[in-house]
Order: sequence, then C-alpha cells, then structure tokens
Amino acid sequence: MTELRQDPFTKDWVIIATERARRPHQLFHVAPRPPEEGPRADCPFCPGNEAMTPAALYEPRDNGTWTVRVFPNKYPALRVEDSPERSFDDGRFIRMGGLGMHEVVVESPHHYHSIDTLPEAQTCEIINALLARFHDLKRDSRIKTLILFKNSGSVAGATIEHPHWQLIGVPVVPPEIRRKYAVASLHFDEMGQNLYRSVIESELRSAERLVLESDHFVALQPYAARVPFETWIFPKAMQTSFGQLHGLAVNDFARVLKRVLAGVVRALGHANYNFVIHTAPFEDEHKSYFVWHLAILPRHSIPAGFELGTGIYINVTRPEETARYLRDVIR
Amino acid sequence: MTELRQDPFTKDWVIIATERARRPHQLFHVAPRPPEEGPRADCPFCPGNEAMTPAALYEPRDNGTWTVRVFPNKYPALRVEDSPERSFDDGRFIRMGGLGMHEVVVESPHHYHSIDTLPEAQTCEIINALLARFHDLKRDSRIKTLILFKNSGSVAGATIEHPHWQLIGVPVVPPEIRRKYAVASLHFDEMGQNLYRSVIESELRSAERLVLESDHFVALQPYAARVPFETWIFPKAMQTSFGQLHGLAVNDFARVLKRVLAGVVRALGHANYNFVIHTAPFEDEHKSYFVWHLAILPRHSIPAGFELGTGIYINVTRPEETARYLRDVIR
Repeated sequence: MTELRQDPFTKDWVIIATERARRPHQLFHVAPRPPEEGPRADCPFCPGNEAMTPAALYEPRDNGTWTVRVFPNKYPALRVEDSPERSFDDGRFIRMGGLGMHEVVVESPHHYHSIDTLPEAQTCEIINALLARFHDLKRDSRIKTLILFKNSGSVAGATIEHPHWQLIGVPVVPPEIRRKYAVASLHFDEMGQNLYRSVIESELRSAERLVLESDHFVALQPYAARVPFETWIFPKAMQTSFGQLHGLAVNDFARVLKRVLAGVVRALGHANYNFVIHTAPFEDEHKSYFVWHLAILPRHSIPAGFELGTGIYINVTRPEETARYLRDVIR
Repeated sequence: MTELRQDPFTKDWVIIATERARRPHQLFHVAPRPPEEGPRADCPFCPGNEAMTPAALYEPRDNGTWTVRVFPNKYPALRVEDSPERSFDDGRFIRMGGLGMHEVVVESPHHYHSIDTLPEAQTCEIINALLARFHDLKRDSRIKTLILFKNSGSVAGATIEHPHWQLIGVPVVPPEIRRKYAVASLHFDEMGQNLYRSVIESELRSAERLVLESDHFVALQPYAARVPFETWIFPKAMQTSFGQLHGLAVNDFARVLKRVLAGVVRALGHANYNFVIHTAPFEDEHKSYFVWHLAILPRHSIPAGFELGTGIYINVTRPEETARYLRDVIR
C-alpha cells in the first residue's frame, strides 16, 4: 500500500510506502547493546576526566560524585560572547553574529547506559538538569528559543558515545518553527481551537496511533510519521513550554520516556535515534496555539536526494501498525 | 568565527561555525576510490543481470550493448497505477493515493565509475536520458513536479553501489518548493526582478563564491551553504525548467559537472554526495521567478537533533574559502 499523508502541523507530505520495506537491505542499523563497563580513560564525559571539558555549570552531587553534569560545549556552534548584530551585504545577503549558547548535559557518570534501563530517579535527574538550564538560559532576552535534543548512536549523529543531551539557544526564531505557528494560528482563527490539543484529543478517541497514556502524558505516533516508530510524548496539561513541566509530572515523564524507549529498543534493537524537545519560542509561550512535546526519531534510512530536494520523507511502515506493536510490547 | 547567514531563497538560517572543524573526529567520511573491475554477478544494474530489474523504458545502444539504462524502480515510493484521490479523515487527517513515478537511470554499464573520470560523451548520454524521461513523464498532467537526484555512497543514502540516478514524479507541489516560490514571488513584486537571476548576477560581480564559469553555465557556492563544498550549477540562459536544457548546452553541462566534481573529489577524496536537480513545478515553468539548477551536496556530518528540530544546518567551513579552493584546483 502506498499513500501520501499531510502532516496537520506543518502541511508537509510524507509518503507511506510499505512495499519498500521488502528491499534487500537491512531495515535498521541495529547496534548490539554494549557491555556495561567502567569509566574509559579516553572519554571526556567519564568521571575522572572532568578537566577535558569546560567547567561545570550544573553538577548535583550524591555521595561525593556528580550524578549529572552540564557544561558549555568545547566546540560551540554559537557563543554567548558574540553579538546578535545584523549586516545586509549588497542588500540581499543577510548575516548576524553567532550569539547563542551551546551546552552539553552528560546523563550519568556511566559510560554505557540507556534511558530504557536507567533507574527512573536518574532520568528525573536528567530532566531536572534540562529544566534548570532552560530556566537559566531563558533569562537572556537576546535568545529567542532553545532546542533541547539528544543524538544517540553514530548513525543518529552522535560523535561522543557517552550518553548526553545538548541545548542550543538561538538568537532567531527558526523559520520552520514560524511556519508551524502560522499553521496553528490559522487553525485557531478558523476553528477557535488549539490545533495540537484538537489532534491529541482526536488521537485519544481513535486510539489507533496511541502508544501509552499515563496520569500526565500521552505517547502517540504521528499521523504523518516520517520514520518507522517515530513517537511523540505530549503533556496532558497542554502546556506550550517545556519550562512549565514541574512537580510529579517530572517523575511521570521519566517513567513514560523509559517505557516508550524500552518498546522501541525491543522493536529495533539498541537502535540509533534522536530525541528532540519541541517547545514554544519564549515570546510565544503565552499563546495557546501549541503543545510542547518530545519527539523520538529512530534513524532508519538516511535522508537523501529526494528528501533534500522536496522535504518529503518516505516511511516504509504505517504508524498504525508500529503503534500497535509498541502498545503490545509495553503493556 | 561564528555567524548566522540567511538563505536568500528560503529565508532559512545556516550557522557557519569554522571552529567546530577542530573537533576531534574526522571531517569527512572519505571512501577510497574503488578499483576498476568487471561486471559483478550480484549487482542488478550490471550488464547480464537485466532480468533482475523491470523492463527498460529507455536503453540506447552502441555496438550491441546499452550505454545508459532506465527502468521503473522495483520497489517504488509511488506508483503510476495508483489514484491521486484525496480523503479527509476526521476533517484533519488528509491523505491521497500514492500516484507517481519512480524510475532508475543506470549511468553506464560499468559497476565502478564516477562522473569526474567518465568520458564527457558518456555524461552527455546520462543527461540525455534524464531529459528524455523528463519530457515523457511531464506528459502526465496528474504529476505536478519531477525530482531528479543521485545518491552516491552509503553515507549519502545509496543502497546500490552501481552509480545511478532516480526520478520521482509527485502528484503534489511539495511545500518546500511552494515556499521558495512564495519568497521569489514577493521579491518579484517588490523589486521587479527574478530573485535567482539577481543573486547569480551579484555572485558573478563579487566572484568570491564563484567556482567556474563556462559558455552556458555558472558554478558557485551558495552564500548560506549548508554543508562544506555545497556547489550549485546554474544555466546562464536563466531557464526555469531542466526540460529547457538542449543543444550544445548539454555538452557544456557535462563538462562543467565533470570539472566541478573532480574538484570536490580532489578536496574530499572519493566522498559521499547527493546531486539534486531543482526545477520549476510544471505549472510554474512559464513564470520567470526561478532558475533551475543542479546542487552538489557532499555529505559531511549527519543532520541530527538540532537540524531536525530547527531546520538550521551547521556548516564548519565558509563557502568563500571552499570556493577559492575549488577555483584553484579546477584552474
């Protein structure tokens, strides 16, 4: 079966072509789960090697050792010392200084671990570290939005194996995010509804792409999933900003993330994936057009010429089927 | 030096962060050029194995053997038998049938070859095959645009090693292409100029990102290059559609492509890359807002969480420097 589906949030198309899964090459780049071992001498994120990174910005301790460690990226994409000044060469080439922040959040002292097997309390530590940095970085009004993400596995773009997140604060609202707001604003103007809330409610009713529902969260696979097993986790409180996450919901978020990832790992092996937290730009947090969410994107085939030329992804699975699989293994 | 640059055609931002090139991991996934060998028994694109693929749609012959071979993709993303009918589940989930075409163009009978060392006459054969299929597929008015691309190397998404192109005809105008037209239309309304022509003329004047100029083509690196050595080849005749390429310009295009790719290979080794031909949607060909072009995208780091979350690429080189390098080695 082959069809095109339109993402209700971006209006981008995805091709669902299940027959392509029959192609004679591996569906997923599956890496075996590495053995548990002690700290590695050459890993800049392992305990004992703290001098290999910039000084910590956040480093809670338990029994004398840090549990999570946040520091500025040694090779930053953007820097807090730069200016956001713009110049307009020849009236058409617009550039601005590389102002921003780029931080690393090391998930735990253990070189080999994964959120699906990590104790929930440790995942709470990670989420609290992300929240602490979110609140601190947001105070700089030159920054328009913050991207929180994790690259796991070399196929997903990780260059250091020790599990870590990155936070990048950017001095512009990325056009891709503007476009989502344009779609959501139009929906609000036409229907008087928050588009994200409407879709989540509709997904809860039909339940065919639902993965998991907890006290505070809903995990579901998007209608126009770009890759097999793409899964989004939304707060039921329908907050616009990740910064509004607090209290018992933090623990629930840790639990849901662990269960969903365990299901994905069960399906795909210790796969390569990205986590991306989508949150409202700071100046749009008060507009209830959006709901923040964490997207899990397992890395299947490599986006190539077709995706680069059109923005259209080709997914070889139907999210209804992969969601059912996850529901079954998670239950 | 770190700065943000805005792409004048899409308004997307790119971060140019040259210090990140110092990171302790390989800049490029460089594969050595494979040895020249005979046909391979297990390759579906090698001579003698024609029965492993669908029947040819285009297959010019010289001395009894085919020179280039075009056939439908055995595992198509879209199919010509499908309907373009739409349905609107729950008023918000829009889908349509998987109508389209997906063809493969095998570049030559040789399993191991590369356009930078291939005889120019053979590259003309390839371009003529692309043009022949373009004109034929365009006759189906249900197809809105055609994407012509080549994935070279596994890091660039190639699943079969034998060099080949793909053509995908889609029944929608991809939103990414609509957005480019929206930017170009606004520019025309404000300035009375074709944005692409204006930028090309400005690049020819400044020459700092110019790679090569021939009788019929200009090769340059875009101001907001997304990856190191990204290079675009534009026709000086400023045509909107690849389908307008003809006559002596075909030979010149083959020559320019060969010289530019030879420079890229000299810089990066036998690197992984994508070619993408950007051409006007069929119904927009008569509007002079656009200029068709071939984009060469060497594959550097893997787009990961940040790019997925923002659409912002991080490039560790300045196009002015990589263009100067190419000018020097190509001269």
